[in-house]
Formats: sequence, C-alpha cells, structure tokens
Amino acid sequence: MGAALALGARGRGRTTPNPNVGCVIVKEGRVIGRGWTQPGGRPHAEAMALAQAGAESRGATLYVTLEPCAHRSERGPACADLIAEAGVARVVAAVEDPDSRTAGRGFERLRAAGVAGASGVRQAEALRSFAGFIARQRHGRPHVTLKLATSLDGRIALPDGSSRWITGEPARAHAHLERSRHEAILVGRGTWEADAPKLDVRLEGLEGRSPIRAILARHPRESGGPPSSSAPPMDEQVGPGFRRDVLWIDSPVRVHPLPADHLLVEGGAETAAAFLSADLVDRLLLYRAPILIGAGKAAIGDIGLADLADAHGRWHLLDARQLGSDRLEVYERRR
Amino acid sequence: MGAALALGARGRGRTTPNPNVGCVIVKEGRVIGRGWTQPGGRPHAEAMALAQAGAESRGATLYVTLEPCAHRSERGPACADLIAEAGVARVVAAVEDPDSRTAGRGFERLRAAGVAGASGVRQAEALRSFAGFIARQRHGRPHVTLKLATSLDGRIALPDGSSRWITGEPARAHAHLERSRHEAILVGRGTWEADAPKLDVRLEGLEGRSPIRAILARHPRESGGPPSSSAPPMDEQVGPGFRRDVLWIDSPVRVHPLPADHLLVEGGAETAAAFLSADLVDRLLLYRAPILIGAGKAAIGDIGLADLADAHGRWHLLDARQLGSDRLEVYERRR
Repeated sequence: MGAALALGARGRGRTTPNPNVGCVIVKEGRVIGRGWTQPGGRPHAEAMALAQAGAESRGATLYVTLEPCAHRSERGPACADLIAEAGVARVVAAVEDPDSRTAGRGFERLRAAGVAGASGVRQAEALRSFAGFIARQRHGRPHVTLKLATSLDGRIALPDGSSRWITGEPARAHAHLERSRHEAILVGRGTWEADAPKLDVRLEGLEGRSPIRAILARHPRESGGPPSSSAPPMDEQVGPGFRRDVLWIDSPVRVHPLPADHLLVEGGAETAAAFLSADLVDRLLLYRAPILIGAGKAAIGDIGLADLADAHGRWHLLDARQLGSDRLEVYERRR
Repeated sequence: MGAALALGARGRGRTTPNPNVGCVIVKEGRVIGRGWTQPGGRPHAEAMALAQAGAESRGATLYVTLEPCAHRSERGPACADLIAEAGVARVVAAVEDPDSRTAGRGFERLRAAGVAGASGVRQAEALRSFAGFIARQRHGRPHVTLKLATSLDGRIALPDGSSRWITGEPARAHAHLERSRHEAILVGRGTWEADAPKLDVRLEGLEGRSPIRAILARHPRESGGPPSSSAPPMDEQVGPGFRRDVLWIDSPVRVHPLPADHLLVEGGAETAAAFLSADLVDRLLLYRAPILIGAGKAAIGDIGLADLADAHGRWHLLDARQLGSDRLEVYERRR
C-alpha cells in the first residue's frame, strides 16, 4: 500500500476531476503491475496496472489507494468490472470511495464476481493523498494550502517589504515542488503588483507543472455586484511579461468554481487573513528560517480573533523536517 | 561524564561566582562518589565527591566537567591538591578551566603529583553547562536567555494585550523550570505594569529557587545621567503585593553588574528588541503554540535590521521538543 500511495502521489494536482489513485498488483511476492491515475483523470490507476500485468493478473492481489469505481462512464469501463474480468483474486483498498456513485458498490460488485475484498489499510494517509478530491466532494471547493515563509518571530519581510531571502535555497525548492502539486496558485493583489511573482514551477523536469494563477482582487473590468458561483473572469495578459491566463477572484468564497482541486495560497498577510477568516485553509505549510527580524511585515493580517481560546484545537502538526538551515512544518486543519 | 554533567546541572543558577561543576568517581566499574558545586559556589563538586568516596578514592578515576582548580582561596583548598592527596589515579575532565587562575594549571599540578589526566570529553556540552560562568569570564556579564511564547505566526498577545493562554500547561511548567535555572529574571516596565507578573518559580519543590527580579526601566527615584557600572538601584517593595527586592536597570548594557551569571529575559517586545539590538542574547527559548492569531502583539520590536543578509548565520538550533501540544525550540547565538 505504501508503494501504491507513492504512485498515487505522482498524479497529485493533475487528475481533476478524478482522485489521484495509485495501484500495485502483486503475485507470489512479486510486483507485476503498477499504475496511477493519468493526467486529466483517465486511465484510472487500476486500468493502467492491469494493462501492465496482463494475463498474469489471474489469481493476483491488487492493492489500491481507493475503492475501485463501480460506474461505467463514457470515458471508460468501471474498474471493478475490469478487475473481475482479469481474474484478480483479492483487492485491498485504503479507503472506500466517498463518491456517492460508488460508496461501497465497488466492493459489492467485486464480491458478486467472487473477488475477495478488504479496506482500511493506511486509511489516514490515503485520505490525505486525496485531500483535493475529498474537499471537492464534501465542500464543493478545492483543498486549500496556505504557504508562509517566515522568520522565527513570524515576519515575512522587513518594514520596506524586502523578503529576499528569508528562507534558503532548499526551502525555496521545496516550495516549488509544492506548487507542482497544486492545480492553482493564488496571491493577493498587493503581492501581485509589488513583487510581480511568476508563480511558476522552477524545478528541472517540472517546468510543465506550473499551476493556474489567480489573484485575490476584483477584476479591473468587472462591474461589481455580489459574488456569483460562475467561473471567475480571466485575463489573457495581465501585467508586463505575463502571458499565461490569470484568474481574478474577488473573495475567498469565490474559489469554489476554480477549475482546481488543490489551491496554494501564497501571501501576503491580507490574503492569508481573508482565507483564514473564512475558515477555508485546510493545510498550513510553514517554512521558518533561523533568523529574527523584529519590526517588519507580519505573516497574517487581522482574522478577527477576539478570544485566545477560539484559536486552540484547530491545527494539528502533521510533519516537521529540516530543509537546509530552515524548518518546514506542515499543519492540518482539524475538522 | 554524562552523569557528571547531569549532577552539574543541579547547581545551575545557584553557584555564582563559581561554575556549576559535576563530578563522579568510579572504581572498578562502580560509582563511589558523586558531587556538584553547592549553592554559593562551595564546596566544589570534587570535594563533595571525594568526601563521599572516602578512602576508596585511592586508585579510582575521577570524572569532572571542568578542570580541577589549582588555586587555594580563603574559602577552601585547591581541588587538584585534594584529588592528589586522596590518591586518585586518573582525572578525566570535559573542559580546561577558562579561569586564568587555573587554565591548565590544575592538570599540571595533578601530573606533578603523579595523577594521569585527560580533557575534552563531551566538551561542547560542558561549555554549554557553564554558559553563565563563561559569559562572566569572557564578557563580564551574565549569560542571557530570551524567552518568547508565541503563536505560529509570532504573536505574543491579541491586539488588546490578552495572552492567557497561548501555550499550554506543560510549556508553562517548563518555563518555570527555566526560571529556576537563572539567578535573575527581567521584564520590561510595560509588562511589569500591565501584567504585574510574579516572576517566581511555581513548581512543587522549587519554590525557593525564584530568581532575583529586574525591570528594564529607569528607576523612578533616579536622577538620570549616563549608565554606570555600579550596582543598579533596588526597591524593597514595588507595586501591590510584591515584597521581594526588585532591581531597576535602565539599559541592557547595565546588566553587567547584576549579581547573576544567568539572566532570563521575559518580554515584552521592546525589551526583547533592546537586548537583541545590543547583541546581548546568547540563547533563545521559543515556546510555540499550534495556533494562529493574526493581528496582535509581535514578539520582538524594532531591532534596526536594514538588510536580511545580516539576520542570517546568527542562530543555531540546539534542541527541539514537544511539550504537550506546543513545541519548544532552543537556539544558541553563534559567536
């Protein structure tokens, strides 16, 4: 299942509207097929792994991070059928499918065809690996990660706005890797205009994985009016040198229709505060340099906190690691 | 040597003007004497361990965190002489004494008496254990620890000043343990007047270890004039309910004559900034709660940082641990 989770991670940020599933087929202690959901969501991980294993699948065990789907679509057959047809003896899944079209029916279908099934293996990790898919299913919006790069005293810049550099090269490279795992990236208008950030992925081999860019601001051409749930307006060219499409989003609640299951929010303080105030941050990526800045720009603006007790119990430390001389901490919103 | 270091730690904050040394005497694989510098600096660790071991010391090995002293004083004989007289066969020290009255002469004296010697075992840890003694020797001032208790975004209070509680009970208990290891504790006048902090040690069995209290502010009765190196003024009673002496210190450079080898600086932001600006902070105790506050009081005021490059390379992470749901990080100033 560990190998299947690692394979599934390859698709993260590229499989919308499908979850980024991973799959490994094992026979007599040997891996005979490996698959992961392909960009755009098809083929599914199981289909890819079965194609690789071929006739050897008969009698094998298939490990998959999500219950195999039970619904045919115009884009392909149901995985549960493919698995049964291939003669797989046993299916082990990490989680049952939260998609109401499947929700246990994949296993039902497998059992009816004589395939043994089990689920719940490394479930918590699998749920995290599909965080985008689940946020879309449950909340109708992308999974939102807020990235902060601060000094030990929580500053993101000097009083004059200079922030190059707080963190070192390994931390900045990691932040670019995180970008590649998100379909969309968002900054506030202030950051956009002050820093003219490229917001792309500058890692060798991953240049093609740059996310859609979004700005938290009213579109200059927009007439106003209440936020709608229709797609946000888009510019072909905004600012000098930017040729990729840019989305304008006038409020955090407008992220719902973004064509993305994973949204990375990267500064500044007011944008961070807007997402936190709306309780729309699911994950916090905190890069911390071992420096003290003192007077300077704070990481997070006013989130309307009136009582310290309300701040507690919301964030859970998932991971902490050293990146060069900096620390990365990953927190998850408890829901 | 690990045991000797642990014994030495018992004296931390209580042995001024002497270093808090630890000592273990071992014979045939068995510990026959243990000692640590007693409150006020005498007896020395070696004298205590030798007294415990008695006649068994003959032929034994003595482990001590600091080179035995070679100077007689009116308060007692030189440890090197005591060790030689007891017939100890071998002395292993962590560090040579930085006190110019000894500085290698302890070992010389031992060698002359036929006692074998070696030093440098767990030296870095030992140097840290004597940080107060060494700061006094080298810089003529106490070793200064700055304590901060912040949210993940570096806030120490809400905009209205409320800070109860950011960290949880285990972190607060640890902060009290740290107080017991310091001879003096200092806060700014703002914190003193706003919070009326007791600044004592509220841990069972350690109530008697409360440090001398100091306030960073001009004494109300003082006429002014440039900072002197004489002892700071003292109040018998300042503020309602406070009966212990309080020292008034009008500038961080005035900490030099404090009757303390270890000074703990606890808030607020301007006091932290004053000590950091004067580059008088040797150690940073950072308690961090897994909460976000947003708008609020910053941990550190203006330290006059004009270039981010100047902030780097100063702080080294020594220790990181979980205290309940909070994290403690200990940083050391690289000098």
